[in-house]
Amino acid sequence: MVNSMKKLAILGSTGSIGRQTLQVVRNLAGRFSVIGLTAGQNLELLSEQITEFKPKFIYYQSKNLVPRPSHDRGSKLAANKCKVLPMEEIAAHPEVDIVVIATSGKAGLLATLAAVKAGKKVAIANKEPLVMAGEIITREAKLSGAQILPIDSEHSAIWQCLKGESQTPKRIILTASGGPFHSFSKEQLAAVTPQQALQHPSWQMGKKVTVDSATLMNKGLEIIEAHWLFGMPIEQIDVIVHPQSIIHSMVEFADGSFKAQLSYPDMRLPIQYALTYPERVENPALPKLDWDKIKELTFAPPDLRRFPCLELAIKAAKAGGTSPTALCAADEAAVELFLKCAIKFTDISCLVEQILQEHRTISNPALDDIINTDVWARERVTKIFNQVKKC
Amino acid sequence: MVNSMKKLAILGSTGSIGRQTLQVVRNLAGRFSVIGLTAGQNLELLSEQITEFKPKFIYYQSKNLVPRPSHDRGSKLAANKCKVLPMEEIAAHPEVDIVVIATSGKAGLLATLAAVKAGKKVAIANKEPLVMAGEIITREAKLSGAQILPIDSEHSAIWQCLKGESQTPKRIILTASGGPFHSFSKEQLAAVTPQQALQHPSWQMGKKVTVDSATLMNKGLEIIEAHWLFGMPIEQIDVIVHPQSIIHSMVEFADGSFKAQLSYPDMRLPIQYALTYPERVENPALPKLDWDKIKELTFAPPDLRRFPCLELAIKAAKAGGTSPTALCAADEAAVELFLKCAIKFTDISCLVEQILQEHRTISNPALDDIINTDVWARERVTKIFNQVKKC
Repeated sequence: MVNSMKKLAILGSTGSIGRQTLQVVRNLAGRFSVIGLTAGQNLELLSEQITEFKPKFIYYQSKNLVPRPSHDRGSKLAANKCKVLPMEEIAAHPEVDIVVIATSGKAGLLATLAAVKAGKKVAIANKEPLVMAGEIITREAKLSGAQILPIDSEHSAIWQCLKGESQTPKRIILTASGGPFHSFSKEQLAAVTPQQALQHPSWQMGKKVTVDSATLMNKGLEIIEAHWLFGMPIEQIDVIVHPQSIIHSMVEFADGSFKAQLSYPDMRLPIQYALTYPERVENPALPKLDWDKIKELTFAPPDLRRFPCLELAIKAAKAGGTSPTALCAADEAAVELFLKCAIKFTDISCLVEQILQEHRTISNPALDDIINTDVWARERVTKIFNQVKKC
Repeated sequence: MVNSMKKLAILGSTGSIGRQTLQVVRNLAGRFSVIGLTAGQNLELLSEQITEFKPKFIYYQSKNLVPRPSHDRGSKLAANKCKVLPMEEIAAHPEVDIVVIATSGKAGLLATLAAVKAGKKVAIANKEPLVMAGEIITREAKLSGAQILPIDSEHSAIWQCLKGESQTPKRIILTASGGPFHSFSKEQLAAVTPQQALQHPSWQMGKKVTVDSATLMNKGLEIIEAHWLFGMPIEQIDVIVHPQSIIHSMVEFADGSFKAQLSYPDMRLPIQYALTYPERVENPALPKLDWDKIKELTFAPPDLRRFPCLELAIKAAKAGGTSPTALCAADEAAVELFLKCAIKFTDISCLVEQILQEHRTISNPALDDIINTDVWARERVTKIFNQVKKC
């Protein structure tokens, strides 16, 4: 049993997806051993995770930010004999079977690439690496034989619906909850506070993705993610608003038949599916759909006028090359400003639009082009912000 | 191309499913050749079908009922050089690849068995053979290597959802439109006329199955059908009312994930899926779901008090052996009486209940037990009807 345990490295283990991944590991005791954990700022939680899961390798960003009580934890880390390695080395380490990319924003890009080049099973929750560098990542995966396993609930749904189907689907329909401001007017949207934006109606997620869900940028990024994961032309990927978040996405086949995957919105299910794939494993901790309580599932088209981020993402996707990188970087920088109350909710899309207008797309980009575009877009957002303090 | 054409025998070609099967054959020109056609009373339509599809083998029931204009058609049959063979021989003929069981009620039982014993691909739309003799049919299929391909839309949905899934599902949820009388009171149900019962809100089907849909007996028979097709215990098959008939059924897996298959209610899709399986083929004639028009999908539990046939079927299914045979025969006889305006709509369930109470279940039945039970149940229905003229 011990020998057949899959060895996991979880990048971003203290974030929302990281913590839920460890819950799944805990619930499915005996199936997984945790070899690597990496965190950003939350050393307190990392220490607890190290004590519980005893990884061989760790990484954490804020070495010099260690506050007083963390001294003990520092020694605890030592006591557990963890080796501190760069995130990319952990991602590519020969002892690791599955790398879970649970980082946020662009933070996971290089580690994702390292894991892919090392031919790992790469379970991706963090969509930005695929959006920024989908072409490079999928090309490298083909070369190395790495398997990219989606964790994002929509992409997990599509992946599940495609299981056993040998033909390319005709169309993918991503469902969107519509976010907390689905019924807001333009004026109401302009007045949205970070606190409001961080209250998602159906999903518990990290800050960046929660704000992206509220602007519908998240759904735009998911279109690009689906494009790379399933090799689907952007034109064949549609979005439909489904506020109950029970149908997680749908696939249409050549004969016009649709398949959908359904469950309560709980990230532990797609996380577990990626980790146990192709097996499905009973997990009593997961909530089960109760059809006595589900009275209706509703659907509506997304409103691109009030939520321009979705259309900007589609535009960037169609432009290809480094455009999605610029989109992604501009969005991440703009969301940071919004979370600091420096700009309005509706300024996020204005800033992204401006960056896309200024950006000169590089086709078939190399990694350097991606990194340079990322840096440029972020700097431009800061500059524009400093110039006008609003767009 | 011609050599790779699949050779079909369509039993019950003039009925609703038979006609739609021929539409699919017509739409997917070059894929199928029609080797055999069998009909009941509708010789006029059979003649047209013979002229168009030029089968080698035919069968029809009403030899002596040929009216005047059919004389010409009689000669037409001859002109087409069709050989008249018994239905069972056509079903088992070495030249036939796929046998489509599109008969109604128990009519297809012996031909289904013949096709299964001959190791054919048997595409079953007619649920009664499986309900009456599921144990024998599935056992024979295992021995001969025959593949049973469901055409019933619910079972096709389940089959599609199970594609590529190697583990037994945890639960099957059959969706039911609820029929035209879903909101009727007991008193209103007692006054339902055959004409009303034949107006199904979402599906175009034959008379027997349309009335069964209105009583929910159809859903009960489908539970038994699903039990045999997918080896699921009756307790793990649930029914949910879904009036839009867009989700055709759902499957729950070990991890709590559900898959559903969706399309507009049109039997040509499941017919085509069974004929082209494992391939999916584009067919412009099939209606495609328009998500701009679908606003909601609703769900409700079935009301077993107003629709007792569903519970009777579950009871018979759990009793096993010849009980489903008795249920099936009693229902077919009772529906015939209802369609002749001889009994009330609500008498159908009363008669079936009485027969089930009287029936002494034979476990592990032989074919003779099935046939005897069928005859006994029909005769009992007639006798009870003659005795009381209502139950």
